[in-house]
Amino acid sequence: MNILNIIAKKRDKGELTKEEIDFFIKEYTDGNITDYQAAALVMAIYINGMNEREITDLTLAMAYSGDVLDLSSLGEVVDKHSTGGVGDKITIILMPIIASLGIPVAKMSGRGLGFTGGTADKLESIPGYNVNVNEKDFIENVKKIGISLITQTLNLAPADKKLYALRDTISCTESIPLIASSIMSKKIASGANKIVIDVTCGSGAFMKNMDDAKELSRIMTKIGKLAKRETVCIITDMNQPLGYAVGNNLEVIEAIEILKGNNMPEDIKEVITNLGSTMLLLAKKVKNLDEGKEKILENIKNGKAYKKFLELVSNQGGDISYIEDTEKFEKAKYIKPIVAKKEGKVVKLDAYTIGTLSMYLGAGRVKKEDKIDKTVGFVFNKKVGDKVKIGDILGYIHANDEKKLDEILEKEIFEIEK
Amino acid sequence: MNILNIIAKKRDKGELTKEEIDFFIKEYTDGNITDYQAAALVMAIYINGMNEREITDLTLAMAYSGDVLDLSSLGEVVDKHSTGGVGDKITIILMPIIASLGIPVAKMSGRGLGFTGGTADKLESIPGYNVNVNEKDFIENVKKIGISLITQTLNLAPADKKLYALRDTISCTESIPLIASSIMSKKIASGANKIVIDVTCGSGAFMKNMDDAKELSRIMTKIGKLAKRETVCIITDMNQPLGYAVGNNLEVIEAIEILKGNNMPEDIKEVITNLGSTMLLLAKKVKNLDEGKEKILENIKNGKAYKKFLELVSNQGGDISYIEDTEKFEKAKYIKPIVAKKEGKVVKLDAYTIGTLSMYLGAGRVKKEDKIDKTVGFVFNKKVGDKVKIGDILGYIHANDEKKLDEILEKEIFEIEK
Repeated sequence: MNILNIIAKKRDKGELTKEEIDFFIKEYTDGNITDYQAAALVMAIYINGMNEREITDLTLAMAYSGDVLDLSSLGEVVDKHSTGGVGDKITIILMPIIASLGIPVAKMSGRGLGFTGGTADKLESIPGYNVNVNEKDFIENVKKIGISLITQTLNLAPADKKLYALRDTISCTESIPLIASSIMSKKIASGANKIVIDVTCGSGAFMKNMDDAKELSRIMTKIGKLAKRETVCIITDMNQPLGYAVGNNLEVIEAIEILKGNNMPEDIKEVITNLGSTMLLLAKKVKNLDEGKEKILENIKNGKAYKKFLELVSNQGGDISYIEDTEKFEKAKYIKPIVAKKEGKVVKLDAYTIGTLSMYLGAGRVKKEDKIDKTVGFVFNKKVGDKVKIGDILGYIHANDEKKLDEILEKEIFEIEK
Repeated sequence: MNILNIIAKKRDKGELTKEEIDFFIKEYTDGNITDYQAAALVMAIYINGMNEREITDLTLAMAYSGDVLDLSSLGEVVDKHSTGGVGDKITIILMPIIASLGIPVAKMSGRGLGFTGGTADKLESIPGYNVNVNEKDFIENVKKIGISLITQTLNLAPADKKLYALRDTISCTESIPLIASSIMSKKIASGANKIVIDVTCGSGAFMKNMDDAKELSRIMTKIGKLAKRETVCIITDMNQPLGYAVGNNLEVIEAIEILKGNNMPEDIKEVITNLGSTMLLLAKKVKNLDEGKEKILENIKNGKAYKKFLELVSNQGGDISYIEDTEKFEKAKYIKPIVAKKEGKVVKLDAYTIGTLSMYLGAGRVKKEDKIDKTVGFVFNKKVGDKVKIGDILGYIHANDEKKLDEILEKEIFEIEK
């Protein structure tokens, strides 16, 4: 087998065999195929596409390019993934609920580049919470209390990491087949055999429009089917931030309050009931989605989900006094209100804009090495559809830099129409 | 300007501006754009193509990426180029003829990888002939005697060298637009303002079929027009070797004998009269091609071309006693006849096969660093169309390795049919 023939085949719109895809992924990971040869092949794939069989073989080759977690001792594990967005704290809310309903939760989350930290960063906002747990202890934790949320400690899908970094430098990130196989390879390496994926769609998400979100969902579902990991994709809105809080500590606080049964934003309710009921159905814990939705809300109401969350935090070494009293979380130096200057209805609160401003405040990373500021971000009072009067407080900006704060206060981040 | 945007534009079938192409070539030559970014762009160009304006801008950007020879002091210089083949000694025969007809000949030839050495290697077969001449002396030589044939001493089109080497490792050599701009960039950097290109077509050439040869010719002619370097392409056959000799010394000897007026093979006669008359017409030395053909043959007959060749060799430091008596050229250790085993007509003498066998004997280079054996190769007595009887000597193999010689003698390199 020869990389030149493989490149030429895809260049000429040919279909690559499983052996050719395996060869490419193995030799590229091992450094025997150069970055420029991989770049040429990736561009040919981007332009000429891959059929579902090829995408599945690519996914599996990447999934098995490094460690693959063996969760078989836990029984039926249903994993959840989100393609990301602004204000996305769903994992922190939903996974304790799921665990409280008897499905084992063994979930590794990334740190991520972008608008805010990843779920692992957010969990680390809780003093003492240890996200770096080895494989053995991770599985032991799940066996003991039914849940463990950690960061990626294993060498998961190194081929995907290498290809992803390459794609970023050659304008090949936006290929839906490549995005699909990147996501699915990590999920498969994480050991799940049933997967629910929250495909975010809108200005704050990777998929900007419904057609792309549907196509990504279709391909991931198909990969799941061909790779024998039942996969369900649910498209959710990411045109405005999810929930009211954006930022690391701020989102954790919102998640805790929701688990405590205090005011759950409508959009978060919709996402957790939709994703959660699907997970319950996949795990055969309910007969239909409506029953699943009821159970989700019930376990928030009766305190079982919150209790499971306390157990999780405590088991990971976190200080539960912060959970019991969220006032204890460190605050930004400046917290200033955003005041309505006109009357009417909120018609837009753009997720991409809020995400970008959060990064500007220091909540996210541009480079892997960057430190994130856990205290900064936004807490909104109003969202799209809400009526406002002049002088109403629309939300608060949390900042540690007065100049940046003032700059943002001058912008009209809420679009209000009569 | 940003390489990511340029890659994305061509990826999406966009048309690159002159500024974008210039930026890519300059920054890639300077090492500011990586090989993997260039590989992605080249693959996108290969698949999505370039229009004639883009190809011309690419050609000019590559031509001006290094030194550009200024031949303006010589008047109207008509350059000649061949896309290469087996037994191609046309430059050595034709250029002295052209010079003897009053057109200044200032030609740099490559050493080349492949079946045999390049023209520069063949000229070096003549003891003392110095192909390494600096720019100033090169032009002085032409002013003095009307001709100089040397190797490339300048840093001509380094961007083309770098891109060509890259294309070779990413299965992107066979793109006709990229081949066309590679050839034309070197010609433009060599200082010619009128160019005649021998587009070889057949098993021993880069273009295997007539459609590709026509398309390459069409694009190069168009580039010449847009770049204001009048270009004429002539497609010639390369299904069997050109002339009777294949090998370095052996081809030089054949060229000398032709210049002396001794038996000119029909195929060589056709090529030199076609190319030569076109050069004469471009230089406005004749009114039509027929007049040009006559003049070419006349200057062989009257000895003027041979005299010009002697002048050239002498002026470059070569020993003209070798030209006067070609028996002086070093010979291979073994010279054995190929004997006809059946009667009939020669229907095939495959150029690619002969080229490959010549390389196997040591006449060509695989890597740039390889030494070539100047003595080995083939001298044929018969070619396609000739009638043969059992026992006829079809040609001779010149070899320095007896084992290789015997191996080749066992092959049926002549295809003979009743």
